[in-house]
Amino acid sequence: MTARSGYRIRRRVQFYEVDSAGIVHFSWYFRYMEEAEHALWREAGLSIAPADKAVGFPRMSAAFDYHHPLRFEDEFDVSIRIAAMSDKTIRYTCELTRDDVKIATGTLTVVCVSSTRPGEPMKAVSIPAEIARRFAVEE
Amino acid sequence: MTARSGYRIRRRVQFYEVDSAGIVHFSWYFRYMEEAEHALWREAGLSIAPADKAVGFPRMSAAFDYHHPLRFEDEFDVSIRIAAMSDKTIRYTCELTRDDVKIATGTLTVVCVSSTRPGEPMKAVSIPAEIARRFAVEE
Amino acid sequence: MTARSGYRIRRRVQFYEVDSAGIVHFSWYFRYMEEAEHALWREAGLSIAPADKAVGFPRMSAAFDYHHPLRFEDEFDVSIRIAAMSDKTIRYTCELTRDDVKIATGTLTVVCVSSTRPGEPMKAVSIPAEIARRFAVEE
Amino acid sequence: MTARSGYRIRRRVQFYEVDSAGIVHFSWYFRYMEEAEHALWREAGLSIAPADKAVGFPRMSAAFDYHHPLRFEDEFDVSIRIAAMSDKTIRYTCELTRDDVKIATGTLTVVCVSSTRPGEPMKAVSIPAEIARRFAVEE
Repeated sequence: MTARSGYRIRRRVQFYEVDSAGIVHFSWYFRYMEEAEHALWREAGLSIAPADKAVGFPRMSAAFDYHHPLRFEDEFDVSIRIAAMSDKTIRYTCELTRDDVKIATGTLTVVCVSSTRPGEPMKAVSIPAEIARRFAVEE
Repeated sequence: MTARSGYRIRRRVQFYEVDSAGIVHFSWYFRYMEEAEHALWREAGLSIAPADKAVGFPRMSAAFDYHHPLRFEDEFDVSIRIAAMSDKTIRYTCELTRDDVKIATGTLTVVCVSSTRPGEPMKAVSIPAEIARRFAVEE
Repeated sequence: MTARSGYRIRRRVQFYEVDSAGIVHFSWYFRYMEEAEHALWREAGLSIAPADKAVGFPRMSAAFDYHHPLRFEDEFDVSIRIAAMSDKTIRYTCELTRDDVKIATGTLTVVCVSSTRPGEPMKAVSIPAEIARRFAVEE
Repeated sequence: MTARSGYRIRRRVQFYEVDSAGIVHFSWYFRYMEEAEHALWREAGLSIAPADKAVGFPRMSAAFDYHHPLRFEDEFDVSIRIAAMSDKTIRYTCELTRDDVKIATGTLTVVCVSSTRPGEPMKAVSIPAEIARRFAVEE
């Protein structure tokens, strides 16, 4: 098994993602980035949220810079890469492109927490080895 | 304590709810209806999804008829009423109005199920008495 | 050119579509149905909302019956069919399935309106012939 | 008239905003921030997207750091402030709090563009004086 360091998905803009200015609402880019993240995990043989999960990966920070708009029915690519990993966190970088046009660039940092009962505070823990060994930082 | 049979909330259209035709996307009406349902439950002294829940209320059916559009920053009312209750189900009717204009009318039927572990099928059960007694069908 | 009467898309449940009960929120089914509708239009050589549109297709009514839940990363099919067409309206029926399991059944009725300036009321008009001839009611 | 430099809204977490981990999905914070932005504009006597708009305000960048989660029915505050203004841009900072707990901190930068026909590229322009004079950078 080779550890995965990145992945790319192709996506089409849906009608309900477009706002009254005729462009994709900026909040959707964060969902696009997460779709690519979860596809990367599947490609690595994992689910980020299996039914019997012992750990979860809430988001510590997320950001996007917007360069060009996306419009209804545009097809575009979402490329996500692992930029850094520590004992408890993963940091991704993300790029959206439509053909040769750079649409947006994003970052996302997630932290591993133990699954808790409702009401209990989340507690950061080491990323389990069987997960960590599936991923590698992109050189 | 008087049993509650209906409730009305006031709401303003948010930018991200408006589509490229300049009107609220039809999928949002179902969320508006649910907001009013949950406000009705709070008004009855309940949460529909408390942290320690023993039962849940998934949706069996939902429908809307759309009469007039809503636009960005419109203020409108969402009135929900209990139209019928059975041992395991509640059926609501809902009306959206903006001033004197009838915007849309909806229905929603929910069923009480026991909370299950992930992967187990949901099982319909009687609505617990401490919930049922808080609600009444609107005459 | 053969007129199209139905279409099927395959879809995977995304994380942000799943609610705290671990199942797809009921409002999402209406978006899934619309995704299939727009894919049907593309398959017929059309866009339902081109940049230079002279007409639009707001929703008159929409409904779903929910039979079984969908969970994170489930793959499922959305089949949409044209059940009826009149001079100004199209009525679709829709079925969601996961393998052999019927997940949900829906209906959607849309009306053709002339594109109006902001603030003007929408006015129902005949579906343009170049659109109507691309579609057929499923026998 | 006094120029406005900030505003705070109170908000309750809705069911459809909560993900399967039982916490508000991170994409929603960007919508909360925008709700506060638009409320600030209304407080300043403006709409950010009036029906007859000559300019629009697409987003150049957006970011959030997440400190504590929000759960179903939590009440929280969203405080937005104008941190910087230039001839064509506005930069906001945003803080979400629940009682005394700092939930998240965000930033948002928007640029003024002339409203264009569909398909035309957006062009940055000076913020109209009748808009700019309503806002002030928070000291």
